[in-house]
Amino acid sequence: MDEQRMNLSAGFACPLPLSEHKNILLAHGGGGNLSHQLIKNLFASQFQNAFLDPLHDGAIFSAGGTRFAFSTDSYVIHPLFFPGGDIGTLAVNGTVNDLSMCGARPLYLSSAFIIEEGLPMEDLWRVVRSMDAAAKASGVLLVTGDTKVVDRGKGDKLFINTSGIGIIPEGVDISPRHARAGDTIIVSGTIADHGIAIMSVREGLEFETTIESDCAPLNSLVEAMVAASRDIHVLRDPTRGGVASALNEIAESSSLGISIREENVPVAEEVMGACEILGFDPLYVANEGKILAFVAPGAAENILAAMRAHPLGKNAAVIGEVVSDHPGTVIMKTRIGGSRVVDMLSGEQLPRIC
Amino acid sequence: MDEQRMNLSAGFACPLPLSEHKNILLAHGGGGNLSHQLIKNLFASQFQNAFLDPLHDGAIFSAGGTRFAFSTDSYVIHPLFFPGGDIGTLAVNGTVNDLSMCGARPLYLSSAFIIEEGLPMEDLWRVVRSMDAAAKASGVLLVTGDTKVVDRGKGDKLFINTSGIGIIPEGVDISPRHARAGDTIIVSGTIADHGIAIMSVREGLEFETTIESDCAPLNSLVEAMVAASRDIHVLRDPTRGGVASALNEIAESSSLGISIREENVPVAEEVMGACEILGFDPLYVANEGKILAFVAPGAAENILAAMRAHPLGKNAAVIGEVVSDHPGTVIMKTRIGGSRVVDMLSGEQLPRIC
Repeated sequence: MDEQRMNLSAGFACPLPLSEHKNILLAHGGGGNLSHQLIKNLFASQFQNAFLDPLHDGAIFSAGGTRFAFSTDSYVIHPLFFPGGDIGTLAVNGTVNDLSMCGARPLYLSSAFIIEEGLPMEDLWRVVRSMDAAAKASGVLLVTGDTKVVDRGKGDKLFINTSGIGIIPEGVDISPRHARAGDTIIVSGTIADHGIAIMSVREGLEFETTIESDCAPLNSLVEAMVAASRDIHVLRDPTRGGVASALNEIAESSSLGISIREENVPVAEEVMGACEILGFDPLYVANEGKILAFVAPGAAENILAAMRAHPLGKNAAVIGEVVSDHPGTVIMKTRIGGSRVVDMLSGEQLPRIC
Repeated sequence: MDEQRMNLSAGFACPLPLSEHKNILLAHGGGGNLSHQLIKNLFASQFQNAFLDPLHDGAIFSAGGTRFAFSTDSYVIHPLFFPGGDIGTLAVNGTVNDLSMCGARPLYLSSAFIIEEGLPMEDLWRVVRSMDAAAKASGVLLVTGDTKVVDRGKGDKLFINTSGIGIIPEGVDISPRHARAGDTIIVSGTIADHGIAIMSVREGLEFETTIESDCAPLNSLVEAMVAASRDIHVLRDPTRGGVASALNEIAESSSLGISIREENVPVAEEVMGACEILGFDPLYVANEGKILAFVAPGAAENILAAMRAHPLGKNAAVIGEVVSDHPGTVIMKTRIGGSRVVDMLSGEQLPRIC
């Protein structure tokens, strides 16, 4: 009887590795602290295996002597169409970029559509043409797909998942765990363009010129960088959660400190203006066509030159370095000479930004 | 001026390859005629390349001398939990099965979650544990993932996409285009269990025993079949749209006719009873753990014996053959001695069945 009661009570013990929130919040998808905890505690703890790296943009596996990168992303951006792109462009470029951040040459993409009943056929057709154009621009092939339709009110127009496969060239070994003390940190251009472009449309803001998303395929830029030097340790595209969250994840993965200088972080003037109006810190705003690169200090000059010679890297800049002080923490020297801790995004800044 | 007008009018011509429906209907996701048209005319016509086969369950590509299968599926089933499984079991087994239908040994899966704000954490945790158990049961690894959260009312609790990669063993060459006149058609067991299990829950029907989904990973059954003979031409898991739609797709791909006998198609008694009550033809009801195999007639006996020796194939039966008459058409000899055309599902039978 006692034994039975014990079994019962064991059966009723909460098996959840997360106890703080009983329900999913928007912030669990925001790319900051809560996203990070959900992925680490719920998914990664259950699915653990040698290939799964919850802090990397994709998985890396070998078959027949070749190394492959494999990555997936669902796109739920609202609105579907925005200055500089649409959900289709984003769905192709986003996964091309995740593969590129593994150092891989992207080859094949799948595309899976979840369509809400009632979506105008013409909108779907626009998106499909954008995907085709984006695939051609980055040289990937859309080779397999799936289509599901959900009843009206059970989706939001269109969600797209793309998964991708790429081949990692010999000698390339890029991972957020490979940051080393002394590494130079480079950003490939101005930050926060994507998030502010989306937010401007949502809020109906008008600026003197239209702020456009930076949505772009980064594979050819990465190719140029790898051709310049193999001393690239970490690549990361700072999407949801922005540069601040990406740097925090790398500091955590590598157990090293990161030091950046505010004055060196490129932000377009109109984007900075919009950030001030909207109350956003550009360090936390999503990008869809930018790279953070951690490279050996001796190779930084060559890599920076290669980046600046590429149209997507012409505003590339050194923004800081990896240090052995303050492991796991990102510290920024501010414009006015002070210094502050740059935390991971907590809560939700911009839901459904990608 | 005339030239300009011509250009303008060309610019305003409707670019849509589909004109019949201006908006997406539920039936565009039902696995029947409209799904087929959407995929063929909208997606496949735009994304065309040598790897994309709109009628196959996945794409096949070679790298470094190895042949790979790559497949994707989004799961939007309602309800999330049902007799015999849940959305997590289905998401793993469904993609394992798509790879298996390419003759591949499934290896790696991605999993991408679109979660509606407010989903109980405990439900997500149950699903994650099911996915883990299903992955272990079929021997695949969940190696990479993504999590998005959409605002309340913009999704429906949980959608999951899984994409998968498998390796195709040497000498295996399976495709819906490889059906040949004379091929024996085998089904691996009773049909319509999945669809009826879901429908029973939705409609609150009670039968004497609970009808359970047949949701299961088919890779080990396919392995046993391939070990018995390499003379397997086509494999297909008849999910959305059921056996009827799958046979029609194969008849179309191969430009051959298909002849089946109603009395040989295995349907469990209680499922047949439920079909009668609900007004469904079991040939159109979804399965999630069954195979249709088209095999050389000389190899049929061996393959059938191997299937019957496997727990998932114990009710395997020969249901018909491929004929050179009536190309593109499926004809069934009925129990009462007549014969009728078995069309592809038109319209929507069971929305969100997978």
